Amino acid sequence: MNREISFYQYLTPEEQDLLDRSMQQVPCRKSQVVHRHGDSCVGLIFVRKGRLAFSILSEEGREITVFRIEKGESCILSAACVLQSLEFESHITAEVNSEIAILPAPTLSQLMNSNPDVERLVYKQAVIQYSGVLRTMQQIIFLSLEKRLATFLLEESQRRQSPSFSATHEQIARYIGSSREVVTRMLNQFAGRGIVSLGRGTVTVLDPEALEDVLM
Amino acid sequence: MNREISFYQYLTPEEQDLLDRSMQQVPCRKSQVVHRHGDSCVGLIFVRKGRLAFSILSEEGREITVFRIEKGESCILSAACVLQSLEFESHITAEVNSEIAILPAPTLSQLMNSNPDVERLVYKQAVIQYSGVLRTMQQIIFLSLEKRLATFLLEESQRRQSPSFSATHEQIARYIGSSREVVTRMLNQFAGRGIVSLGRGTVTVLDPEALEDVLM
Repeated sequence: MNREISFYQYLTPEEQDLLDRSMQQVPCRKSQVVHRHGDSCVGLIFVRKGRLAFSILSEEGREITVFRIEKGESCILSAACVLQSLEFESHITAEVNSEIAILPAPTLSQLMNSNPDVERLVYKQAVIQYSGVLRTMQQIIFLSLEKRLATFLLEESQRRQSPSFSATHEQIARYIGSSREVVTRMLNQFAGRGIVSLGRGTVTVLDPEALEDVLM
Repeated sequence: MNREISFYQYLTPEEQDLLDRSMQQVPCRKSQVVHRHGDSCVGLIFVRKGRLAFSILSEEGREITVFRIEKGESCILSAACVLQSLEFESHITAEVNSEIAILPAPTLSQLMNSNPDVERLVYKQAVIQYSGVLRTMQQIIFLSLEKRLATFLLEESQRRQSPSFSATHEQIARYIGSSREVVTRMLNQFAGRGIVSLGRGTVTVLDPEALEDVLM
């Protein structure tokens, strides 16, 4: 199963063996914290089943989810120490019951040093994930809350390929960096204008064009 | 002089020749805009003389400098299209009279495709520069303006290895993402508490420990 890791095919048989022996399997229950800021640098996290949320945390504990790691994907920003780059206050949580595999930081570091292809692919992935973080931060700095909510609703319905999806107001607040109360108020406004309909823990986008108009 | 570019030594003689022929020399006067958002993806920018500022721009035109490129350094985020990553509203300006060399995006792309070492070093550099952007954005999101000003004053005096440095209130406002008026007010407060002294276009840090206290 480690073959799914992007650089696996570039490893020598010895390096593959080292990776296979080092990977640690970790089952995670929904809402479990996989990595908490202040923990030592964990390494590469690979999601075998389920889904993780990667969040940043403010001093006051406000949590903002900046990207998600789906089944078959991995997270490299949890190995910031190996990248000799910024370690920021991050938090990784299982969004659903999940199974993950962790390649510990020292082994990852060893593979990056011995194999330039590993280094190349790891940095490439880090650039993509940093882009995701930046995009979210830029939205927080420069977009109004209403625009951030519209962006989230449009992207989420596209991502799920369905106008209806399950999400609590608390979760949505985390994605757009606001509070549950503010999200509830804005969603009710959108519902009043016929843009969305709200169910128990679900949101249905009725009028995506109206959401596009919010973004104008 | 192209030897100073991080991946130059990894190029074949043919690739070195291609790079040497492609590099475009551009003199820039102080305050000149080297790259404006909306311009096509420029490529790798190498600073031969002087200093550039890399800024992000809000919809309302608020400008925030996220990192600087000093003599002998290069900027890769001006080649976001080549990295297949986020192109964000960025703005590159000469802080002083400068001389830069640009490796155009198509040539950079060609070298990255033909030479994995180029790809590796380019992505590595992008990770480092993205970290700088993230760090600034995180400060903007999570730190108070006063803490951002204290951070700027401490870092700037360390970077210049002198308690005294030249910076207008307008420039400082750009570094911390605020307005000139707010910076002037906060600097006057710091001056009143004996933390800094202010001259014509210069700031002198008198009490770095008091600035550290602000960050507590």
